[in-house]
Amino acid sequence: MQTLPGFRDFLPADCAQRNYIFARWREVARRYGFLEWEGPLLEPTDLYKKKSGPEIVEQLFNFTDKGDREVALRPELTPTLARVVAAQERQFKKPLKWFSIGQFFRYEKQQRGRLREHFQLNCDIIGESDLAADIELVALSIDVLRQFGFTAQDFVVRISDREFWTDFLRRENVQPDSWSEVLQVIDRSARESREKTAEKLGPLADPVFATLKSGGKSAKLERLVDGLRARGLADFVAIDVSIVRGLAYYTGVVFEVFDRAEKFRAIAGGGRYDNLIAQLSDDAVSLPALGFAMGDVVLSELINEIPTARAAMQKAITDDRKLDIYIVIAKEERRADALRQIQQLRDRGYRVDYPLTPTKVGRQFQAAEEVGARVAILFGDEWPQMKVKNMTTGEQELVPGEKLGDRLAELL
Amino acid sequence: MQTLPGFRDFLPADCAQRNYIFARWREVARRYGFLEWEGPLLEPTDLYKKKSGPEIVEQLFNFTDKGDREVALRPELTPTLARVVAAQERQFKKPLKWFSIGQFFRYEKQQRGRLREHFQLNCDIIGESDLAADIELVALSIDVLRQFGFTAQDFVVRISDREFWTDFLRRENVQPDSWSEVLQVIDRSARESREKTAEKLGPLADPVFATLKSGGKSAKLERLVDGLRARGLADFVAIDVSIVRGLAYYTGVVFEVFDRAEKFRAIAGGGRYDNLIAQLSDDAVSLPALGFAMGDVVLSELINEIPTARAAMQKAITDDRKLDIYIVIAKEERRADALRQIQQLRDRGYRVDYPLTPTKVGRQFQAAEEVGARVAILFGDEWPQMKVKNMTTGEQELVPGEKLGDRLAELL
Repeated sequence: MQTLPGFRDFLPADCAQRNYIFARWREVARRYGFLEWEGPLLEPTDLYKKKSGPEIVEQLFNFTDKGDREVALRPELTPTLARVVAAQERQFKKPLKWFSIGQFFRYEKQQRGRLREHFQLNCDIIGESDLAADIELVALSIDVLRQFGFTAQDFVVRISDREFWTDFLRRENVQPDSWSEVLQVIDRSARESREKTAEKLGPLADPVFATLKSGGKSAKLERLVDGLRARGLADFVAIDVSIVRGLAYYTGVVFEVFDRAEKFRAIAGGGRYDNLIAQLSDDAVSLPALGFAMGDVVLSELINEIPTARAAMQKAITDDRKLDIYIVIAKEERRADALRQIQQLRDRGYRVDYPLTPTKVGRQFQAAEEVGARVAILFGDEWPQMKVKNMTTGEQELVPGEKLGDRLAELL
Repeated sequence: MQTLPGFRDFLPADCAQRNYIFARWREVARRYGFLEWEGPLLEPTDLYKKKSGPEIVEQLFNFTDKGDREVALRPELTPTLARVVAAQERQFKKPLKWFSIGQFFRYEKQQRGRLREHFQLNCDIIGESDLAADIELVALSIDVLRQFGFTAQDFVVRISDREFWTDFLRRENVQPDSWSEVLQVIDRSARESREKTAEKLGPLADPVFATLKSGGKSAKLERLVDGLRARGLADFVAIDVSIVRGLAYYTGVVFEVFDRAEKFRAIAGGGRYDNLIAQLSDDAVSLPALGFAMGDVVLSELINEIPTARAAMQKAITDDRKLDIYIVIAKEERRADALRQIQQLRDRGYRVDYPLTPTKVGRQFQAAEEVGARVAILFGDEWPQMKVKNMTTGEQELVPGEKLGDRLAELL
């Protein structure tokens, strides 16, 4: 019996890293006034088939359920968000600022930084077409990464604009129904040979390559960078029109976050999808929207790559794992007294552990050290007093039962 | 486009309730010295087919993946835990005390308190055969519920023992290979007519009914209750041998938690499964083990049923949702100054929101109230001073930029 390929077991040390990431994601999203929500892990396959472009459908973890429904483990959150908002938006004042932390699935070949499941932070702003929302969203993606200890030397947000390219395609007289396909080719051009891209683009190859080389000009993107500069975040971004994003539904500003050393896949990506909610609405609800997603797999690789980020994570995990109190039962006659005390200490919110069965005192103190207990309390010959040991300094003292609470409040 | 039947969207208010439950689950499990872990959502179907009894397999959300593997969305965590521990146990000192919070899936008819997905807290102790572990685990299940504000008037843990019944079946000369089936019938007897149960049990019906009526005697269960009494928790438990638990893998003490009013399905359930790890081990690892699971659906119903519990949840959610600061931009000329300040305040960890686009001042203060901001800071004619409004008291004051940090530290 083994874990399925591309899936992970999170043993306690792995789970602590996962929770460290989740806690920082949640903390920064909430600083920005975002509210948390969550969608179902299983959705009708149709939700993805029509709206996300051909690339995603090939990789779906989809199947027919026992009720003959075509369903899929969700590969991304944006179609679910668009469905939920289209149906429920009347309840909420605009703009909505919503975030979510959940698991996503793709059936694809495993590669470095790419499993068949991963966790993602999704942050979206719904109901605001002004560029101020794009600036707020990009700033959030930057501040989320800064919270892990990364600096402008460690990562960069490459920003681009779908409209820049659709304007280009219009000028080149490309028919709108093939725009999506051409944009996919441009999106892949950095990962494919120039020959292959040229072959796919045909007569468009020369103008596309010329535009990619010159870098293009975009007043909108320059205003976006100015907005980030006003916040002191300009060092974290670069205009890069080669960013197109694979998904069909983007309509405006798009961005991807990369490590500066270009060692890893994208850490995060997102953009505007102003038409998606209308496409999924039964009641002709139309709202501009934008969002980004950040996965846990590449982020974990980068944390482990950058020494300061790794050290910050390890310290936070070690501190968080510590117990407050370990109860040492030196005399079994005192076990009932100890258990009564353990219940009271836990009721007061302390993290308390103890040996379930008779154990040598030396091994109990060893266990106290291993779990990082800050205080050990020994129940033995001194009863009704207890020996309280400060595990940091090694100091010991005798404390009578009625004074234990006050003494612990001082020590912990 | 709709949510699949039996699946939930968690809008922000629902997600806050879910997170409230998760936070209390995690808090109390950690007080007991349990470490968090997590398994994959998708597992080989075989993991459940052989070990969990026929009841569970009928209800699996299972399918064949694109690699021709028989896989299932996990219905429960225990088989995964047994697999992981069988493979990895050498890394860890015994006993392990592990907990997990995750989502589980069953393909079954929707009923009250029973969807096709739900979240569960799982708490397990691995590597300890002593009854002290059973007492610790039952105490944890009680304290988790106490953390929601429930008392002994609200819920009861009904404890029983598989060995009580296997001893009975041995005395009645029932062949071991039909024990599992007979136990299923006894498990269902409370939910089925006496006639139907009698028909299924045949000649065993009379002795089973007599035993259920008399309540049976169990020295082990009395010791378990004594252990809880020593902790002051005896009011929360009752010996009830009609509890058998549906799953085939249980071997010893089993328990289920119910609301006293018997209005809802079981809130939690668990027990000993001393043979499961050996059954799933390739290397003949054998470890005694026990655990329980508590779902979010019935628990939510009970929280909403008991006024004190509901009030505690609503207060916690309201408090948790509050923003620290709302920035009111009274003059658009001050927007750039406001944004610089917003970035600094968020960098210092405050939760800050503001209007993305020009908005009337009155509506901005209304927004500040709606998000529960404790302080509003107005950027307007007073610049370079700011008007700081305590949203609780309504008091306003002018604060120069260099004093803002100190003043906010006092106010927040």
